[in-house]
Amino acid sequence: MSLTNLSGRVALGIDVGGTNTKFGVVNHRGEVLEKGYLRTDKYNKVEDFIDALYNTVYPLIEKYGTAENFDGIGVGIPNGNYYSGTIEQAANLPWKGVIPFADMMNTKFNMRCAITNDANAAALGEMLFGAARGMKDFIMITLGTGVGSGIVANGSLVYGHDGFAGELGHTIVKPGGRKHWSTGSEGSLEAYASATGIAITAKKMRAEFPSSMLNQYPEDAINSKTVYECALKEDPIAIEVFRYTGQKLGEALANFVMFSSPEAILLFGGVIKAGDFILKPTKLHMERNLFPIFRNKVRLVFSELAEADAAILGASALILGLKK
Amino acid sequence: MSLTNLSGRVALGIDVGGTNTKFGVVNHRGEVLEKGYLRTDKYNKVEDFIDALYNTVYPLIEKYGTAENFDGIGVGIPNGNYYSGTIEQAANLPWKGVIPFADMMNTKFNMRCAITNDANAAALGEMLFGAARGMKDFIMITLGTGVGSGIVANGSLVYGHDGFAGELGHTIVKPGGRKHWSTGSEGSLEAYASATGIAITAKKMRAEFPSSMLNQYPEDAINSKTVYECALKEDPIAIEVFRYTGQKLGEALANFVMFSSPEAILLFGGVIKAGDFILKPTKLHMERNLFPIFRNKVRLVFSELAEADAAILGASALILGLKK
Repeated sequence: MSLTNLSGRVALGIDVGGTNTKFGVVNHRGEVLEKGYLRTDKYNKVEDFIDALYNTVYPLIEKYGTAENFDGIGVGIPNGNYYSGTIEQAANLPWKGVIPFADMMNTKFNMRCAITNDANAAALGEMLFGAARGMKDFIMITLGTGVGSGIVANGSLVYGHDGFAGELGHTIVKPGGRKHWSTGSEGSLEAYASATGIAITAKKMRAEFPSSMLNQYPEDAINSKTVYECALKEDPIAIEVFRYTGQKLGEALANFVMFSSPEAILLFGGVIKAGDFILKPTKLHMERNLFPIFRNKVRLVFSELAEADAAILGASALILGLKK
Repeated sequence: MSLTNLSGRVALGIDVGGTNTKFGVVNHRGEVLEKGYLRTDKYNKVEDFIDALYNTVYPLIEKYGTAENFDGIGVGIPNGNYYSGTIEQAANLPWKGVIPFADMMNTKFNMRCAITNDANAAALGEMLFGAARGMKDFIMITLGTGVGSGIVANGSLVYGHDGFAGELGHTIVKPGGRKHWSTGSEGSLEAYASATGIAITAKKMRAEFPSSMLNQYPEDAINSKTVYECALKEDPIAIEVFRYTGQKLGEALANFVMFSSPEAILLFGGVIKAGDFILKPTKLHMERNLFPIFRNKVRLVFSELAEADAAILGASALILGLKK
């Protein structure tokens, strides 16, 4: 591959998480040509983090010539604001307050830098390279430690007037319900459908049913993976954990469908490894709560991107998806 | 005003309701130059309705020259689909099935015809002529016999993949809650926040509190207007009816805000005549259920369009709001 061919056709995709930061060089076909990572939590000052990131990434940039061979840098980062380029009050990052992250990156790397939150980036990645190719209206739901979302309407991400649209994990599915461990809200989708929420449900249910296989694990080993293992062995309580989770998720999805009428809802993240144990009740309760004109129209689809690369691809799509 | 000045700067706005159809000639400043109406429910066949509409409207068209002086016809109609131009399974209209309404109008009138549902039209009307002028992200909620909605994101109406987006009245605010008299769903926003829902709440509450002033009215006189009269006279039960309604509405609005992060939510319809009795609890419960980054940002605004003209203005905005 010659440098000429690369020119303007690669981007840096960077996924900043609370613990680790992953990055990669991505081409317009969605191939991750190079990748690497560094620790996020080692840097108490954002300036030091960006310096370290630059030093780690620079060899890759040199490998592809100069910064001019790159279309830019896309960053998925908690609370990243696409409009302002700032990160604001991100609970899971070591840097507090309002930080002009995109400007700082732009100055350091001398490249255009666009940022958004990780779930929005994931939605763009699916639209450009994954299961949402060709779709103009879909919703991406990421089911990991938390529940994130990215909403695409009429071919564009919905950012809202302030850049913060799409916090569907914080919508209330059960008023007065389970209290969220961090936000304090009652009955949010995240409190039930995240990996954290599933573990809470599993611990409650196994306490009520001493015969459940789930009781063979120590407290800190109860998570969506071990619940899945027990469900595979036909433990009825483990199966009920996913059924209950799917019910709450399905009820929430029905409301989302009646908002933006998407062609599909894409599910991504560790939780979906439970497969039909969660997908079937989700689908059932989504359909049951839909106004008739929406029924049997919306596809529930699992992400097509490899989990290891999805965040980098999504971040790069912020740049590679821009119209020339 | 000369015909030359009018050329291409007026549109027909038509609001088709289950009982009456209102129409008007609207100019680009949002002035209703002429208006009239005919009965909808007199026509069992849609062909007969369109013939009658044409005969009633034709004198107005002639008054402004010919069809060529009109930019087109905008129609707000229940279940109207902007993409397909069809009305589909509209429960409140005499014509059943899927009807190619826009095509039929276009053939009869020899003008471009665009249709959408009444709440979407109302949102366009506010954006072009009312309280949402200059806004790119807002949500319109119509609180009448039912609860309708129109969602604008990034300057465009959200139609969804099938043209049916924005059925927020049917979203579930209380799973397992009040059964909807028509759809059968449990706990929808419409079941609580529509005029119909408010009457149900008032009847329940007055039965529990015999001392309430609401008990001085016969059963069929209990509606949002009489509840408002009692609230003005400081009847605590009447005040509680609006507080409860506002709580449910506010909880729903919080979820909507976390979806599309609008600059404002516009409220329209008979129910808002209750003013602060409903607005204050709505605002309180919206803020209480918002994820912190959304708090104290979203304006709750009453419509600025005169109720008598709003539907005609909204329908005309379907045409007058098109980019040249």
